[in-house]
Amino acid sequence: MNCVIISIGDELLDGRTLDSNSAWLAGELGGLGIRVVECITVPDEPERIIRALRRGFDISEIVITTGGLGPTDDDLTRGALAEYLGVKLTRDNRVLDGIKEIFAGRGIIMPPNVAREALIPVGARPLKNSVGVAPGLFIPMNDSRLLIALPGVPPEMRAIFCEELAPLLLERGGGIRPNIESLFTVGIPESALFERVSRASSGFGTEGLAFYPSNIGVEVRIDTGAGDNNAAERLRLIREAVEPWRYSNSEKSLPAVVGGLLSRSGRTVSTAESCTGGLLSSRLVDVPGASDWFPGGIVSYSNEAKAEMLGVGRDILEKFGAVSPQVALSMASGAARLFGSTFALSTTGIAGPSGGTDEKPVGLVYYALHTPERTFVRRNRFTRGREDHRYRTSQSALAMLWLWLEGKYKDHPWEDGSREIEL
Amino acid sequence: MNCVIISIGDELLDGRTLDSNSAWLAGELGGLGIRVVECITVPDEPERIIRALRRGFDISEIVITTGGLGPTDDDLTRGALAEYLGVKLTRDNRVLDGIKEIFAGRGIIMPPNVAREALIPVGARPLKNSVGVAPGLFIPMNDSRLLIALPGVPPEMRAIFCEELAPLLLERGGGIRPNIESLFTVGIPESALFERVSRASSGFGTEGLAFYPSNIGVEVRIDTGAGDNNAAERLRLIREAVEPWRYSNSEKSLPAVVGGLLSRSGRTVSTAESCTGGLLSSRLVDVPGASDWFPGGIVSYSNEAKAEMLGVGRDILEKFGAVSPQVALSMASGAARLFGSTFALSTTGIAGPSGGTDEKPVGLVYYALHTPERTFVRRNRFTRGREDHRYRTSQSALAMLWLWLEGKYKDHPWEDGSREIEL
Repeated sequence: MNCVIISIGDELLDGRTLDSNSAWLAGELGGLGIRVVECITVPDEPERIIRALRRGFDISEIVITTGGLGPTDDDLTRGALAEYLGVKLTRDNRVLDGIKEIFAGRGIIMPPNVAREALIPVGARPLKNSVGVAPGLFIPMNDSRLLIALPGVPPEMRAIFCEELAPLLLERGGGIRPNIESLFTVGIPESALFERVSRASSGFGTEGLAFYPSNIGVEVRIDTGAGDNNAAERLRLIREAVEPWRYSNSEKSLPAVVGGLLSRSGRTVSTAESCTGGLLSSRLVDVPGASDWFPGGIVSYSNEAKAEMLGVGRDILEKFGAVSPQVALSMASGAARLFGSTFALSTTGIAGPSGGTDEKPVGLVYYALHTPERTFVRRNRFTRGREDHRYRTSQSALAMLWLWLEGKYKDHPWEDGSREIEL
Repeated sequence: MNCVIISIGDELLDGRTLDSNSAWLAGELGGLGIRVVECITVPDEPERIIRALRRGFDISEIVITTGGLGPTDDDLTRGALAEYLGVKLTRDNRVLDGIKEIFAGRGIIMPPNVAREALIPVGARPLKNSVGVAPGLFIPMNDSRLLIALPGVPPEMRAIFCEELAPLLLERGGGIRPNIESLFTVGIPESALFERVSRASSGFGTEGLAFYPSNIGVEVRIDTGAGDNNAAERLRLIREAVEPWRYSNSEKSLPAVVGGLLSRSGRTVSTAESCTGGLLSSRLVDVPGASDWFPGGIVSYSNEAKAEMLGVGRDILEKFGAVSPQVALSMASGAARLFGSTFALSTTGIAGPSGGTDEKPVGLVYYALHTPERTFVRRNRFTRGREDHRYRTSQSALAMLWLWLEGKYKDHPWEDGSREIEL
């Protein structure tokens, strides 16, 4: 099944707002076996909305709109849908009652214009909005085509999609959700992973296999297929090839995986950051319940702070420079001591764009893991800009801890271009 | 002049990649007086690209494509453009020489497939790519319509746009760049700002006035108009209304503005973060040269760290709780002492989604500014989710420091819902 997504809103066409809905929807629809063949963004103008609907149905069976379902004068999607369908808007009293209840529950008088959100095109089925007011609309057309309208506010759009729309789409697809398995990996580039997976499963082809790289790792998605022997064998081979770098099948956040491992074993980690400047700690704090296993961290941006707070020797700073394996190591040990944590991670590097030298070029980074047994320090170089540098550095440091907690650090087949520095 | 943007790439239609180019381009084009009337995203398929080009020129005079100009087999934009135009692709030797020079400069042998990037449709003018290899293409058509192709890699697309394309577009627009003035504000919601500006300039209408809100502030854009007395008077009134919250006309980053003020006066700031977890420090470190005025920060996520490292009294933590004005105040003073900095900022709050109580609900936050004179602490509540909470908190704390450095803290007309807590 093919689908076209139409995003509606003036703010999407003047640079004010980045459309994150289309990419999210495309990813989710892919998981349901529905392919997005085109996205169109139009302003809040009925003629342009209607023209986009026509074009959408020229090339696909499903059209999903987002935006323009709010209560104000410039929310024109409902009317445009009715005009396109050649039907009237009618008040849905159950929807209206639901909206009144929401306002009553909040103890607020419902502004009169909100009643507009209970108007729906004749023949449309409202989709319950559990986190907002405006319902989505599900409109099966006579010729088996399907028109769907969702609000533009991302949390509302997502809630309606997951809770109401996905089950209906699955029903129409014969109830078969393609069996997709995700393998979240860290520490291996897409090209190397692709090569290993292709080689391992070479007899079976690469159909139903997709790689989603980002600056924190690569997600491998496999359509696990018909469940016959062939499919099972192929799946086994792919899993085996990916295994050394796979940190989860369900949790994209490496900080959350690491946090889970720490939490279950009653251990803790602290941080000492220079080039990542707080990114590593803020990623750890993103994990709900982080206070159980993350006491805190130091952002030691100046040499003074590295020496005073973390106890990095001034002679070491002078002799080797702030960006050195010696300093990374000393920072990690200092943080563990300071916070009394089981483990500690440190980062020091040259994020760029300036500050590089021949000996220590832009992109160079050292990161260290303190463990009760000993402290490890690794060297790498990331040259795709400042933000990328900081994300990759924080993820590489976390990967060290993840491997250690899994008992796999020492025998790991490193593929991330890093090497351990022995001092 | 109207414009349609066509984004090309399979990765934009399966959820792998968020299209940030269209919104950026739309904002820039708006600044040149060109209105984006539609954005279309299509896969790397020549027929779909050509169909999108046809549709684009049905409704606008300018079509800009992004993506598909790379050297690999799935980069099909060049061929699709030539086919749409009914011309051949021809090798541009000056472009080829330029590409060879880039590789020679890097000391790398040019892979043969890269030569493909020197193929351009007959009649196209290459646009120099100062940060990558593939040139952009500028193609004036016979009927005065204009077709432009840019690479999809954001830094390359942006560099070509700013350095090469914008001047050409201005030329075609008669050389008149609309005179847009930006006022970056912090600490006042869009609605309140809109009301103040409308009231102040009520005789002159709101034409050419736009508000761009985000979780770090509101940008006000004014078309400064014809330069006559009326326009000048209107501009003066608007500026005056916005002035108390305006931190810059050119620099969107409040950390950069604060850093500039500190740097010029030889003063420094450190941080002590709880709920922001390192976001505040990582935003400071984002500013080039931050090491001159930012020695570092503490992420004191546990009470233990607050007490041990920042010297927050255990009695205070016990009596008032970690989320309290007393603790915020003590954290800020502790950071200033620890880092020996002129100023310090602290944050402590409940970012949610859980952890709230009746007395201390989700969203509650205290942030403090330590100055050599005294320490100020403010209370606010941000209820739009965890990420928003952390951004707004970091920005609110920075705003305190900005106002202090400008000598405007004490008489500031606060409009951000915060209040100072006197202890």
